[in-house]
Formats: sequence, structure tokens, C-alpha cells
Amino acid sequence: MNDSLNQNMHTFETKDNKTMVVFSGDLDRAIASFIIANGAASMGKKVTMFFTFWGLNILRKPDKVKVQKGFMDKMFGMMMPRGSKKLKLSNMNMMGMGAPMIRKVMKNKNVSSLEELIMAAINSGIEIVACQMSMDVMGFRKEELIDGVKIGGVGYYLSEAEDSNVNLFI
Amino acid sequence: MNDSLNQNMHTFETKDNKTMVVFSGDLDRAIASFIIANGAASMGKKVTMFFTFWGLNILRKPDKVKVQKGFMDKMFGMMMPRGSKKLKLSNMNMMGMGAPMIRKVMKNKNVSSLEELIMAAINSGIEIVACQMSMDVMGFRKEELIDGVKIGGVGYYLSEAEDSNVNLFI
Amino acid sequence: MNDSLNQNMHTFETKDNKTMVVFSGDLDRAIASFIIANGAASMGKKVTMFFTFWGLNILRKPDKVKVQKGFMDKMFGMMMPRGSKKLKLSNMNMMGMGAPMIRKVMKNKNVSSLEELIMAAINSGIEIVACQMSMDVMGFRKEELIDGVKIGGVGYYLSEAEDSNVNLFI
Repeated sequence: MNDSLNQNMHTFETKDNKTMVVFSGDLDRAIASFIIANGAASMGKKVTMFFTFWGLNILRKPDKVKVQKGFMDKMFGMMMPRGSKKLKLSNMNMMGMGAPMIRKVMKNKNVSSLEELIMAAINSGIEIVACQMSMDVMGFRKEELIDGVKIGGVGYYLSEAEDSNVNLFI
Repeated sequence: MNDSLNQNMHTFETKDNKTMVVFSGDLDRAIASFIIANGAASMGKKVTMFFTFWGLNILRKPDKVKVQKGFMDKMFGMMMPRGSKKLKLSNMNMMGMGAPMIRKVMKNKNVSSLEELIMAAINSGIEIVACQMSMDVMGFRKEELIDGVKIGGVGYYLSEAEDSNVNLFI
Repeated sequence: MNDSLNQNMHTFETKDNKTMVVFSGDLDRAIASFIIANGAASMGKKVTMFFTFWGLNILRKPDKVKVQKGFMDKMFGMMMPRGSKKLKLSNMNMMGMGAPMIRKVMKNKNVSSLEELIMAAINSGIEIVACQMSMDVMGFRKEELIDGVKIGGVGYYLSEAEDSNVNLFI
């Protein structure tokens, strides 16, 4: 019995990963997700970020990558923001402020840019997963995403979530 | 002591339900919530989806149901989307794409429609709960919602959340 | 061994706090977050609400507070809603309904106003934390926020999240 007990204890003790679904492609929500992720990684936690739907745009390479695509896939590719630098805010875009102003203010106040946050995340071993189904729907190929991204399905997300005590949908 | 220990173990072992608050009535977020829910159910997990605020619209029957209502309740009923087929996207609506295009692309890529995902959820025993308070505020009656929906309050949601190791707000 | 075991048990048993990141400054999402928070507090749970980005606006005092600020900080202060009474809906604002109508309907149906929900939260000991970094970026000072608010960073949020079995991002 002691063995099974220790096993249970072990299972419990290690269930403190952090897993986020990053559904949104808004600049502000992207920044928030990476700040939380990097904070948790700096505390020694395993972090998985699962990018789905609009969140995939955060992971796009800024330059066009040559791949063969059908008409609809090309349309999606053109209409959606190509990478982190093209993301918009969820709020206050209409009032003339928008993403550039927030970026400037964050820089003035010495807050890392989204691009720096993403680099830090990859360097600290945070797992960046692109949702397989969303890639299919939007017609994205792996080579169009930044380096270091892994592809996975909802099953993979759920297995990571299972081992996490903090699960967020952003 | 062994007994209390085993009990504790048991409590811990069974705390792996999944609970989601579906606050949003956006087509894309609705799809994401049902994909996650169905994935978890297919892994044998108990899943509870608590629909509140705009999320209630996802559960509306597409046809008008004859019920006596006050003026404001009628207004709400008319102004909000009547069921899953009328939902809009959280994004890209302005650029002329919108919900029909996403639906077409998902069909082309053999992804289930929202309606199929909802049916699958109900058939696999996922608990679909409509928020009592939101129904009162928006003037919805139970007979206006699709079959198989249960009504519950925030206390019910919290008790389900308590037994879950994945909790999301969508 | 029994000692370490009991300690583990204890750790596990008390890990049922509730922690929310309130990122959004929408009236409807603010109401939802406080209804969940107050519900959990009434069940005797410890609740922490971490207000970041637009969520900070919920905590602003309605009247202007005299503080020295730079140009950009003043701009932010003027452009963003000053407190809970100025928040807008995430939805249906365009159709002429908006926040006042929802407030009226909620009042008619005897649902507490956001201001009452906030007061109840503070009175029941829910921890209201304003994100340090967001305050820096937006140029908010502590005296501009309602009384009873604590300032904390992402590290503080993560340590509270660690002790919670319900974690939400709103």
C-alpha cells in the first residue's frame, strides 16, 4: 500500500503545470498570456501554450513563406495579421490609439515587447503548440509559423491540461 | 487512519471533471468550447458547460416559441441571435467574411459544424446548463431553449467547478 | 512518514481557493466575474481577483483625483472609462441598447448592480488586486482606485493561482 500511496503522492505533487488556450489574436491578450506564461516558467513550472483560431496569427512569420495553397487558404493568409507585429488591440482601436501607442508606452515604461516575451518564452522552454485543426481550417503550414512551434490536436491540449493546476482560456 | 487516507485519495482521484463557463455568444468561441468539451468527454471525463449572458443565445431554438412576455423581454428576444445558426464571429466580420465563410471552410475541411458539435455533446452526456439569472434578465423561458438543457444558478456552477481540474471561462 | 503524509493531505485539502484574472473592462464581463466571486465567497472560499489591462478601469474612482502625470498618462486617464459606471458592454452597444438598458433590466429583475456587487465583494473579504505593471503602463496611481484595493505583480497572482482549484481568465 505504501507504494501505491507514494505513487499517488507523486502524481499529485507534479500536477502543477500551467496550460493556456490562446484563442485570441489581440495584441493585448497575447501580451497578457506571455507575461503569465513567462512568470510561471521563471518559478520553475512547466508551461504549455496552445494557440488556436485567431491565436495562430501570433505565431506567423512576418514574411511571406512560399507554399502552394488553394484560393480560400490564400484569402485567409492575406486577410489575417501576419505575425505578432501586426496584431491589433481588443479595445480602444477606434479612438485613434491602437497598438502602436500601447507599444510605445510599454517601451517607455520598460515593459518587454510582445516579440521579446515570445523569445523569452521559447528560450525558457515554454511549450508553444499550434492547434492542428485551426491550421487546417486556416490553411497554415508549419513553415509559415515561427521556429520552435510544435503542432498538436485538442487531445494533446487536454492531456497537458490534465497535469495542470492553472488552466486558462485567453 | 488508513480509511481516511483512502477516502482522501478517492476524493482526489475523482476530481478530474471539466467545467466551462460559456459567456460568449460568438460562433468561433462556441465552436472552440464544444470541441474542447467533446474531446474531454471522449476521454471519459464528466463535462459541464454553463451558458451565461450571450452564451445563452447558442442554446436558443431557431424557431420562435410562443410565450407571454413583457416588452423588454420581447426586445431582447428579437435583438439577440436566435440559436447557433445566427451567431457571428468575434473577429473578421467587418471584412466581409464572417460566419458563412468560416462555416464553408470548416465544412470543406471536414470539421463538424457547431450544430453537429452540440448534438454530439448532448449525445455523449455532456451537461448543458443554462444560467438561471441570465434567463431571468434576458426573459428567456426553458421552452425557448433546445431540448436537453438544464437550468442552474451560480451555486450549481461553482459546485461543478469544485470537482473539476480544468475550469475555463470562454 | 505519517507526518509528511498529513502535511501533503493538508496542502491538498486547502487548495480550493478561487482566482480570477479580470483582463476585460466590459460591463457584462465585470458583472459575471463578481457574481462568480461573490458566490464562491458565500460558500466560504478564499477568492482573489487580479485586475489587469482594461480590467483596471473597473476599479477607478468615478471622480478625478489630483495627481501629477506626464502627457501620455493623462491621455490614458482621459480616454478610458473612469470607474464601473462608465463601462460598456462587450456586445449590442451598436444596436442602441448598451449598458444603460442592461442596467435597467437587471434592476427590474432584482439583480444587484455592478457597484453593489463590488461592495459586497470587498465586504466579504474578497481580495481585490490591481496589477502593478498595468498601473505603470496606464499611469494609474493607487489613490485613483477605489478603497480596499491592493497592488500586486504577476508573481503574486501566480502564487494565489497555485492555491486555487478554480482559475479563470475573464
